[in-house]
Amino acid sequence: MSIANRRETDALGERVLPADVLWGVHTLRAQENFPLSGRPVAPGLVRAYGLVKQACLQTQRDLGAWDGREAEAEAVLQAAREMAAGALTAHIVVDALQGGAGTSLNMNVNEVLTNRALQILGDAPGPSSRLSPLDDVNRWQSTNDTYPTALRLAAIEGIKRLEDRLVFLQESFQRQEQRLASVVKVGRTQLQDAVLITLGREMGAYAEALARDRWRLYKCVERLRVVPLGGTAIGTGTGAPRAYIFQVVDTLRRLSGVGVARAENLVDATQNADVFVEVSGLVKTGAATLLKIAGDLRLLASGPAAGLGELRLPPRQAGSSMMPGKVNPVIPEAVTQAALRVMAHDQAITTAAGLGSLELNPFLPLIADSLLDSLALLANACDILARHCVEGLEADPARCRQHVESTTASVTALVPVLGYATAQALAERATREGRPVRALVREAGLLDEAQFDALLSPEAVCRLGTPDIRP
Amino acid sequence: MSIANRRETDALGERVLPADVLWGVHTLRAQENFPLSGRPVAPGLVRAYGLVKQACLQTQRDLGAWDGREAEAEAVLQAAREMAAGALTAHIVVDALQGGAGTSLNMNVNEVLTNRALQILGDAPGPSSRLSPLDDVNRWQSTNDTYPTALRLAAIEGIKRLEDRLVFLQESFQRQEQRLASVVKVGRTQLQDAVLITLGREMGAYAEALARDRWRLYKCVERLRVVPLGGTAIGTGTGAPRAYIFQVVDTLRRLSGVGVARAENLVDATQNADVFVEVSGLVKTGAATLLKIAGDLRLLASGPAAGLGELRLPPRQAGSSMMPGKVNPVIPEAVTQAALRVMAHDQAITTAAGLGSLELNPFLPLIADSLLDSLALLANACDILARHCVEGLEADPARCRQHVESTTASVTALVPVLGYATAQALAERATREGRPVRALVREAGLLDEAQFDALLSPEAVCRLGTPDIRP
Amino acid sequence: MSIANRRETDALGERVLPADVLWGVHTLRAQENFPLSGRPVAPGLVRAYGLVKQACLQTQRDLGAWDGREAEAEAVLQAAREMAAGALTAHIVVDALQGGAGTSLNMNVNEVLTNRALQILGDAPGPSSRLSPLDDVNRWQSTNDTYPTALRLAAIEGIKRLEDRLVFLQESFQRQEQRLASVVKVGRTQLQDAVLITLGREMGAYAEALARDRWRLYKCVERLRVVPLGGTAIGTGTGAPRAYIFQVVDTLRRLSGVGVARAENLVDATQNADVFVEVSGLVKTGAATLLKIAGDLRLLASGPAAGLGELRLPPRQAGSSMMPGKVNPVIPEAVTQAALRVMAHDQAITTAAGLGSLELNPFLPLIADSLLDSLALLANACDILARHCVEGLEADPARCRQHVESTTASVTALVPVLGYATAQALAERATREGRPVRALVREAGLLDEAQFDALLSPEAVCRLGTPDIRP
Amino acid sequence: MSIANRRETDALGERVLPADVLWGVHTLRAQENFPLSGRPVAPGLVRAYGLVKQACLQTQRDLGAWDGREAEAEAVLQAAREMAAGALTAHIVVDALQGGAGTSLNMNVNEVLTNRALQILGDAPGPSSRLSPLDDVNRWQSTNDTYPTALRLAAIEGIKRLEDRLVFLQESFQRQEQRLASVVKVGRTQLQDAVLITLGREMGAYAEALARDRWRLYKCVERLRVVPLGGTAIGTGTGAPRAYIFQVVDTLRRLSGVGVARAENLVDATQNADVFVEVSGLVKTGAATLLKIAGDLRLLASGPAAGLGELRLPPRQAGSSMMPGKVNPVIPEAVTQAALRVMAHDQAITTAAGLGSLELNPFLPLIADSLLDSLALLANACDILARHCVEGLEADPARCRQHVESTTASVTALVPVLGYATAQALAERATREGRPVRALVREAGLLDEAQFDALLSPEAVCRLGTPDIRP
Repeated sequence: MSIANRRETDALGERVLPADVLWGVHTLRAQENFPLSGRPVAPGLVRAYGLVKQACLQTQRDLGAWDGREAEAEAVLQAAREMAAGALTAHIVVDALQGGAGTSLNMNVNEVLTNRALQILGDAPGPSSRLSPLDDVNRWQSTNDTYPTALRLAAIEGIKRLEDRLVFLQESFQRQEQRLASVVKVGRTQLQDAVLITLGREMGAYAEALARDRWRLYKCVERLRVVPLGGTAIGTGTGAPRAYIFQVVDTLRRLSGVGVARAENLVDATQNADVFVEVSGLVKTGAATLLKIAGDLRLLASGPAAGLGELRLPPRQAGSSMMPGKVNPVIPEAVTQAALRVMAHDQAITTAAGLGSLELNPFLPLIADSLLDSLALLANACDILARHCVEGLEADPARCRQHVESTTASVTALVPVLGYATAQALAERATREGRPVRALVREAGLLDEAQFDALLSPEAVCRLGTPDIRP
Repeated sequence: MSIANRRETDALGERVLPADVLWGVHTLRAQENFPLSGRPVAPGLVRAYGLVKQACLQTQRDLGAWDGREAEAEAVLQAAREMAAGALTAHIVVDALQGGAGTSLNMNVNEVLTNRALQILGDAPGPSSRLSPLDDVNRWQSTNDTYPTALRLAAIEGIKRLEDRLVFLQESFQRQEQRLASVVKVGRTQLQDAVLITLGREMGAYAEALARDRWRLYKCVERLRVVPLGGTAIGTGTGAPRAYIFQVVDTLRRLSGVGVARAENLVDATQNADVFVEVSGLVKTGAATLLKIAGDLRLLASGPAAGLGELRLPPRQAGSSMMPGKVNPVIPEAVTQAALRVMAHDQAITTAAGLGSLELNPFLPLIADSLLDSLALLANACDILARHCVEGLEADPARCRQHVESTTASVTALVPVLGYATAQALAERATREGRPVRALVREAGLLDEAQFDALLSPEAVCRLGTPDIRP
Repeated sequence: MSIANRRETDALGERVLPADVLWGVHTLRAQENFPLSGRPVAPGLVRAYGLVKQACLQTQRDLGAWDGREAEAEAVLQAAREMAAGALTAHIVVDALQGGAGTSLNMNVNEVLTNRALQILGDAPGPSSRLSPLDDVNRWQSTNDTYPTALRLAAIEGIKRLEDRLVFLQESFQRQEQRLASVVKVGRTQLQDAVLITLGREMGAYAEALARDRWRLYKCVERLRVVPLGGTAIGTGTGAPRAYIFQVVDTLRRLSGVGVARAENLVDATQNADVFVEVSGLVKTGAATLLKIAGDLRLLASGPAAGLGELRLPPRQAGSSMMPGKVNPVIPEAVTQAALRVMAHDQAITTAAGLGSLELNPFLPLIADSLLDSLALLANACDILARHCVEGLEADPARCRQHVESTTASVTALVPVLGYATAQALAERATREGRPVRALVREAGLLDEAQFDALLSPEAVCRLGTPDIRP
Repeated sequence: MSIANRRETDALGERVLPADVLWGVHTLRAQENFPLSGRPVAPGLVRAYGLVKQACLQTQRDLGAWDGREAEAEAVLQAAREMAAGALTAHIVVDALQGGAGTSLNMNVNEVLTNRALQILGDAPGPSSRLSPLDDVNRWQSTNDTYPTALRLAAIEGIKRLEDRLVFLQESFQRQEQRLASVVKVGRTQLQDAVLITLGREMGAYAEALARDRWRLYKCVERLRVVPLGGTAIGTGTGAPRAYIFQVVDTLRRLSGVGVARAENLVDATQNADVFVEVSGLVKTGAATLLKIAGDLRLLASGPAAGLGELRLPPRQAGSSMMPGKVNPVIPEAVTQAALRVMAHDQAITTAAGLGSLELNPFLPLIADSLLDSLALLANACDILARHCVEGLEADPARCRQHVESTTASVTALVPVLGYATAQALAERATREGRPVRALVREAGLLDEAQFDALLSPEAVCRLGTPDIRP
């Protein structure tokens, strides 16, 4: 049995390809050139590229550029729609970290759309007089304007999913805020016993921080909406008709449902990647929030006996291959790792953006791969943290109560009634004698049990400030 | 001659201090504990702390807490005003990277205000029954709420200066955009000759990117305005009267002229440092922009003979201790270094924020030192880049013209008139024969000199797109 | 048609799995818990884990632990050999960024080895009285000692490949050093024309820097050789017989051919990940070297007309989807991106290592994924840089010569003969009049053409220093 | 009273300076150009530059270059000796982040040495026919070779101090390893109770990790010893006599007592900064170690009541301005911040090194400032951690014992005697009934008190492995 081949030629010469692949000679060169990261291009970027191509082709058609070639136009538009729907992603085979500012991805897209359109037309993939990847599918475009446009769209999609998962996590914490509102516990600053608080308020602080992250992402989208499409090579629109330039972004807006707008200054929008640094910086702010929350959860659930043990995380898997019954905080640990990688990606994105030169940033593929990975990682991290951990969190109220009674931190709660000096003396004596504050208070006849309990109630602990000194 | 000493006591015992220093035993301990970075606390943070203390003291007074001690109240308020004005900065002697979440700075401030007030009252510095650093100056406060509040104020001040210098730089580039509007040159993508552009448009792209940075900073301030003042230890306001909590931020707003607002969720605002990560992330976006611009300037001014040589940076100093006449791009190089440090600070800020634990982030001193340094560095970088470099930039129009004529990039400008195929053939022939495009065009009788020049005019080059294919 | 299932039970309850998968219920839990990065565990780590398991199982057998179960022992050893050879990698399906310090990978390995052994024995995969993933395959082991051991082995393998590719790249540059030894050109400092040098010496400097990187990697291996195998849970070897602990590393050395040695302090070796920070730090030193070299190549090949144009990189693909004939430095650009990601990985590795707590570092999966990716990325980057770029580099000697003659940098070469003052005067006049130095020298009768050429010869330019002032 | 001025001229024109300053017009320009970081050049770099100049001047003299000017030679050598001893540091006033690859520092040094020598000769500072900063003090040198040489020397000095403080810290932990050898405690993996260990072994693991850091630094020095001195501008030694080039490094070795050697490939050594990336990478490995240790100490000392409370850090200062009696882990917190900054510096150093271009890296000033700061920060961090924290550490043996008895982790210690199944059943029952393992064991008559205690003794806990299953 012989495997069929086909031949294709580019500026560097002729090459043999498997007959049925949808990609072509440019893609083949890129595959040979960049056996580098082994990572595929992010699927979201491929889909977004499909949408951008669809907008370009549709605008061309609206302007009459496909007149007389209706079948071809419909076929290639159909191919672009398929790519936008994710159906052609497997045919995008160039390495995520390709050199060349994304030209290889653009050409892989052009070739796949062309060959897929030929299939739709009933032809075999390969060089054809009916459709050209360059003259038709890439008409009036450059990698320089389509790639950053597609990346912005893909980032917006990634942000939307992240927002959605952030909200889910925020709401999980809000539910726990309510559930655990009455669990009084020792608050700690610098890991040292400080003053009383409730578990509910701790959960509420996490929810609040996540709400800010959500707001930040919302703001990001505004900036990403500004696209350089139509600018072609370096933002001057060279080679593209003016009517097309003025129209193509409108078409993209209509097709994508995203409120994209053409950049006022296309030269700037083509060469500068600062918007991705901005977005990545805000995304990694969320990573810092998650790092903090995950660290707290691990700490609060430490033990169970020889740790803080105030929280119990839902067991998700046998914790140890060796120690029976051990339950580890595997979800917060996974979240921590995702957060650290997002921070690392941010470094790469920032440097890569700063290394742009003159009319273009050649390192957009790294920026794209890092940013889209960050968005996905963080969305996944929020999702598993909510589903596999926060939703099933349980307090250990007895442990919390035991901590409250054993620590001198509880005396701050007595200050409003007993005064600072008495409270401090109690604290010192409790430490010196290793006895609970409650016992000393009762022994000294300062408060009865009910009074003591009232001062340590959730309401008392959460009340903002102390009763005013001057009414 | 004997140097006078005084004695002070804290929880750890008695210590001897020089009699006339305004700081006290807590500060002494901190100095001994943290011989670490050798960096002083940022002056802006000290001034902001003075303002915060002034607001706290004034609010106390308004609530009657100083009744009967009018002279003392006035003296300590006066001291706080002096600190806010920068007059007491030299007395803040604790290390910038102190441990303890800022307690050492707060105590240094408390001690200096107390002793300065005693001086104003005609007393000597040192322990006194008239004024106490803890009971009076720190009343109803904690480091946990005053420190982050002061840091937010200091950051806002730093941002305002940075905004101001960014605008200056942006306007410098805008002036050059106008001045150099008619210098046609080769645009480069991936450092390879691409299509024509003007120097003016390049300058304009820098100005546009800086405009975005400015907008980002403007947005930052909104978030920093939300302060945890009044939350005392962990955001519950424990130990402070409610009336004070509701009033103190209003006082601060009035005194500072900054539209600060009390955080809705004081527990969250006390423990989470994400706002500083957000701000730093946006500031480092500006650093990436500067890195890119500085790289471009160095590149465009390279040579002068054996480089691109399209720009001439104003000579600022003899460039070489050895090679006479060499003028180096020292200002862009300095700017690059500032940008790289800002990026590094951002990493530290992000990690430090993520490492906060439970009710507090103990690493605020690192965050403060890094963030305020970033703001100052970037402001200074913008300032010297504008004043010492961009303002005095000169084009080398002859070199630009020579590049235009020697490169095949110029043929893209001919496409609208000659068509793509002819243009490409010209490009190939020019490369093969090593001859200028202009000569070939004239030789072939395709265009006369005037026509050729018209297609290479600034207007032609900057025109968006090419004339429409279908009118 | 019905798909067969099987049931498995762990501490959390019973689950249904496809009947024929080699992994089991622990792996299933991990898959459900960690839909996070979408990255598989690095194949090199899986192979290394197979080798570690083989060593453990073999040692058990040598100590008689499998006596009476010869068939089972042989089957499971066979399975481990298959894993070490890479034949079972597809069955390792847990996410690279799993939480839990690697327990999920270890359990995935245990389950696959067990089920593969059952297959070899002619049984179906699934719970069996003949072999247990925990009691048999994980006997006397913990994730805590096997995972870091496997990671060290995988890192050593990665380093060896990287070394090999570094040597290849170094030798490529050395060949070019020889080939281009006689091309005199302008040396540049701070991108400004400085003094003369040859292209060969530039290539030689790259080779020399790579030689240092190679030496660094060589040194790394030494440290990675020290493994905690035998330490079980926290380095005390709890649960494992002493004879096994003393023997298992010897077995691993024999089987792996790598000179591994048991850590003196197993507690330390189990909990500390500093060795990976060290290795990553050295690997990223190589990334910095590549970043520099790739930047230089892009710069030297810039143009071709309106840039430096001293080098011509071999064309690897059509450079632009829009500008015909444009050849971009795609390989150096890809290398740059790889270098930036390696630097980012280094940040994550460092932070993750620093965040270890007490007896274990739970973030080893992130460290493993980042470090092994860095090693692979850098090896691939060296490989494509050598094969696709350096090997085919060509000088443009005419351009180099033109630069030499146009720049005043050439006058430094005349100093030994004409003296500093005359040389400087020549430089100034050349700049002022825009004329080549050679013409002025001849005109002034200072040197004839042959003398001038001799001073600009490669030998003259590369001679160390100038003739001594006192013979 | 009028302040005397003097006039100086450089390539850019004439300037007025205060009459008595030791720096001159080049320094003035640099001050005006770089009001950037506000940081002075690292004192260690200034001293090292003094040493390098001394070596250059001495070699010149040995070669007869100062013949006939004995007084001047002696004066300028005396000035260099003073600078090497640190006596002239205050006169080095250029900004740490100066542009220009260090030329401003070199010129500041040249001017100060010249004017100081004039003072020694009885003349006033300022332009003089007796001595020239350029022709005499900078003779046969370039910033390009002297600056990196001085930086290497300064780094070696910094490393030596860091080594010394690392040893001090390591020995502190070793003392605690001995002191706390008999305190049995719960070992924790992933913050969950795991198996037993002793506090002594934990301290020993820290000491061991620090020993590796020490070894790493020791290895660094080897690489830093290779210097480009004599290479002048770009490593070709242009302008310097060969005899000088061959001799000057020997002189430097003799004067410095450091085993410096001339780089084989001066072109490479001049342009590449990878050695600083390597050193920084190893230094930041130490930072990761300190981050881990500091985190552990904060955790183990958490509480005291509502935390782990196994360790008590020596109180160093009143912990809170508000909560009486609170003692915070301020020293580990300071150390953590130092570690994070070192990691940040490493990022900047790596990127800056990678951004070097062609024959020079213009960002050496940033590299120098960051690296020398890292070395100092880490040395200081080790010093305060040892002196203020580790030396005074105390265990809370009662708390450790209480944890041991309450956790099921203790059952692993019983496995060798009771068998796994019985041990596991005990663990489960202890968890279920919330009762101590000891009580259950005694109740069931499995072991008497003495036997139980023996299995939990430090010797039993630290024994490597369990008794062999087959004797």
